[in-house]
Amino acid sequence: MAKNLLPNKQEQPAEWYTKVMQLADLADYGPVKGTMIIKPYGYAIWESVQNAMNPQIKAKGVQNAYFPMLIPMSYLEKEASHVEGFAPELAVVTHGGGEKLEESLAVRPTSETIIYSSYAKWIQSWRDLPMQMNQWCNVVRWEKRTLPFLRTSEFLWQEGHTAHSTHEEAIDMKKWAMDMYAGIYRDYFALDGYLGSKSKSERFAGADDTLTFEILLPSGKALQSCTSHDLGQNFAKTFGISFQADDATEQYAWQTSWGLSTRSIGGLIMAHGDNNGLVLPPKLAPIQVIVVPVKPEGEQLVYSQKLADVLTTNGVRAEVDMRDDERFGFKLNKWEVKGVPIILKIGDKEVESQNITAKRRDTGDESQIAFNNFGTTIKELLVKIQHDLLKKSRLVNKEGTRSAATYDELKTILAEHKGFVKVHWNDSPEIEAKIKAETKAVSRCKIAADIPGIDFYTGEPASDVWLFAQSY
Amino acid sequence: MAKNLLPNKQEQPAEWYTKVMQLADLADYGPVKGTMIIKPYGYAIWESVQNAMNPQIKAKGVQNAYFPMLIPMSYLEKEASHVEGFAPELAVVTHGGGEKLEESLAVRPTSETIIYSSYAKWIQSWRDLPMQMNQWCNVVRWEKRTLPFLRTSEFLWQEGHTAHSTHEEAIDMKKWAMDMYAGIYRDYFALDGYLGSKSKSERFAGADDTLTFEILLPSGKALQSCTSHDLGQNFAKTFGISFQADDATEQYAWQTSWGLSTRSIGGLIMAHGDNNGLVLPPKLAPIQVIVVPVKPEGEQLVYSQKLADVLTTNGVRAEVDMRDDERFGFKLNKWEVKGVPIILKIGDKEVESQNITAKRRDTGDESQIAFNNFGTTIKELLVKIQHDLLKKSRLVNKEGTRSAATYDELKTILAEHKGFVKVHWNDSPEIEAKIKAETKAVSRCKIAADIPGIDFYTGEPASDVWLFAQSY
Repeated sequence: MAKNLLPNKQEQPAEWYTKVMQLADLADYGPVKGTMIIKPYGYAIWESVQNAMNPQIKAKGVQNAYFPMLIPMSYLEKEASHVEGFAPELAVVTHGGGEKLEESLAVRPTSETIIYSSYAKWIQSWRDLPMQMNQWCNVVRWEKRTLPFLRTSEFLWQEGHTAHSTHEEAIDMKKWAMDMYAGIYRDYFALDGYLGSKSKSERFAGADDTLTFEILLPSGKALQSCTSHDLGQNFAKTFGISFQADDATEQYAWQTSWGLSTRSIGGLIMAHGDNNGLVLPPKLAPIQVIVVPVKPEGEQLVYSQKLADVLTTNGVRAEVDMRDDERFGFKLNKWEVKGVPIILKIGDKEVESQNITAKRRDTGDESQIAFNNFGTTIKELLVKIQHDLLKKSRLVNKEGTRSAATYDELKTILAEHKGFVKVHWNDSPEIEAKIKAETKAVSRCKIAADIPGIDFYTGEPASDVWLFAQSY
Repeated sequence: MAKNLLPNKQEQPAEWYTKVMQLADLADYGPVKGTMIIKPYGYAIWESVQNAMNPQIKAKGVQNAYFPMLIPMSYLEKEASHVEGFAPELAVVTHGGGEKLEESLAVRPTSETIIYSSYAKWIQSWRDLPMQMNQWCNVVRWEKRTLPFLRTSEFLWQEGHTAHSTHEEAIDMKKWAMDMYAGIYRDYFALDGYLGSKSKSERFAGADDTLTFEILLPSGKALQSCTSHDLGQNFAKTFGISFQADDATEQYAWQTSWGLSTRSIGGLIMAHGDNNGLVLPPKLAPIQVIVVPVKPEGEQLVYSQKLADVLTTNGVRAEVDMRDDERFGFKLNKWEVKGVPIILKIGDKEVESQNITAKRRDTGDESQIAFNNFGTTIKELLVKIQHDLLKKSRLVNKEGTRSAATYDELKTILAEHKGFVKVHWNDSPEIEAKIKAETKAVSRCKIAADIPGIDFYTGEPASDVWLFAQSY
């Protein structure tokens, strides 16, 4: 596996991305255009994300469940803005069991309609609230332009769906979900971002408010990493989710939905990767430490296995590369491409001195570690790598965020640097559409309010601060 | 929740089944005919099954992955007997993104074809073998007659898919998977069954051999609880999965596939349930112990919470019923219907004496437990309940298995008792079809070989022992 198989990341980002995905064995293309296969090395990252989120979701009192994937078209059509948003992306089942179906069924693009039709049956009284469910599943959105992980016709995600007796409670839940996501991104993905509300044009089809966590990728484009929606009473009114309150009045429920998908892995690849391949943050790395003996035999192999055992005992995901048909240099490149956080090189010198040479994937730094206290030292190094990657991500955001006072300034920044452009702005779908047509950039989120200033586009007074950017 | 809401299990098994499913809050019907919603209480059982199986699957070196759900029809049509088996049950996507698709796509009924088309790309040399992957996913089979969990248009399962360099290795893997399943059924579901090969008519479409674990349900009908297939080189030849062996010859791979689904939960409900509702084995029970104070307030509530805390600290899934709008008797019925293995009743007497009244759901036996050593005593009782349920299941199998020497005897047994009928038989699709038409029973599995005897149907010599039964 020669390094020069990999295109330069800065010069050919798209080629670099798809090549890394394949060389690192994360994923492959599916037979149907726009679909992908998540291979074991990529799926293990998703499992780590699930294992990080599931306990938090359950501790919040949200229970896992499973709703049918096939949704009657009539359900999707009930909420006008919802169907408008999703109709162009639907995959439709028209035949079942050899016969044409009376009503066509959509493969779920998201599950609000099918879940809320059940909530309407299950919710009668304030005692049934809050109703809080989550499902881990696949969804299908027929995309014209696709990119593995980032935009695929089918992807995996979790979707949380809650119903509450008050708007305050729903707002709290929406915020809780986004804070939980931001924590997962910072603590596990080692990716920082901006948290804020979407504009009227960019919010979820059927929501009153959508929170997002926007990540800046090295290309200068933003990535919407996940969303959490305040659905108000929109779906409750459409699907008849009402309850008898404790004062005996009949009221509509207040709802939220929120999701994080395998798209997050695409962001991870793009954000941390370099010209040598993938760079995985230790907490999500399927293999945290790979031990590579120069010769996979004799004392070197015994010592390597001993090191891996010490690490495994310490709760570190460690493996030994025992293949006897690949050269040492080839192996080092292979594990670099796969982004393993720490590579331990074991030759005769290391066996003799009972020292270990550890190479950090993120910085390339090599250090000598004594066998004494070896497990603890490696664990500390993994923590440091995780921390340093987040620090680097913070710097990318900081350096990639520039302020513009006028539309001309925004256009200049986008042309010269891309990245986030910070502006005062009064949310306006008409103006946003014009900006999008001219610059390919849209608002990403509102990051502050109540700060007096001047609307960059109209010159009128504005008190909301927004980020604009081009995006994936 | 009055007990008389529940039909008698023996007299009205179907009504009992669907009513328990809803009263215990396991599941509900989906809007599309034949689909179901797995509610949190039911899904938690499935999560326990996943948590039991995943470590075993991974320890065997089988890695989790995810393949696309939509399969080009041409892929399914490549393996003749495979498409013949599944074509009548397919759900077909004909439109995507608002346009008619050039090639229709099947929603996966099982994933052999799409996975093996990738294996053909990925497998080149003997060094790439064994290739062993598993996926947890949804599948769709358009069924005419449906029953929640047992037969639904969409269900959840895991499907393992492996490719090996020798037939022996594939046979070992097929056997390993079925032994693993049988272990899960016995140790977690507390259900024993018969393990054996399917007949030519009943085996998987495309397999050379199918192993099954057949469970006898109280109705006298058998349930195929899971399957493991020796696919021979059938799919390898169709999809071109060949490899260069270490002797440099080009060979086709040997394959297996194996699956266990949410159908297992249907078997669980039917097998253990009684006239008071669900009876859950402790290892799969979402709540293992429910603490019910007579009055959910004051000292009773404090004591109840203390008991639950002790149990939780001991690793027991315990909860306190704190609802203040339901009567004590109603609550006891509610938790009986939900099949919670142990109910602790806490009144003033229990608070004063620092004793606890524990009621076993499976036997109805009540016992007094001293607070001292309380956690350990409950844990031992849970182990005993798990053990007793399995013992009961073994007895059901034993008592429900009868031998027949002739076809007339088989018909008499089926008419009088149903259950398993043990016969000597030479596997013959023509004869099996006749028997099925006349008795609604088919062979379930071959449980022994090389035992000289007389074919019950033809009177000819036969050395294989089979079980016949009617089934779900």
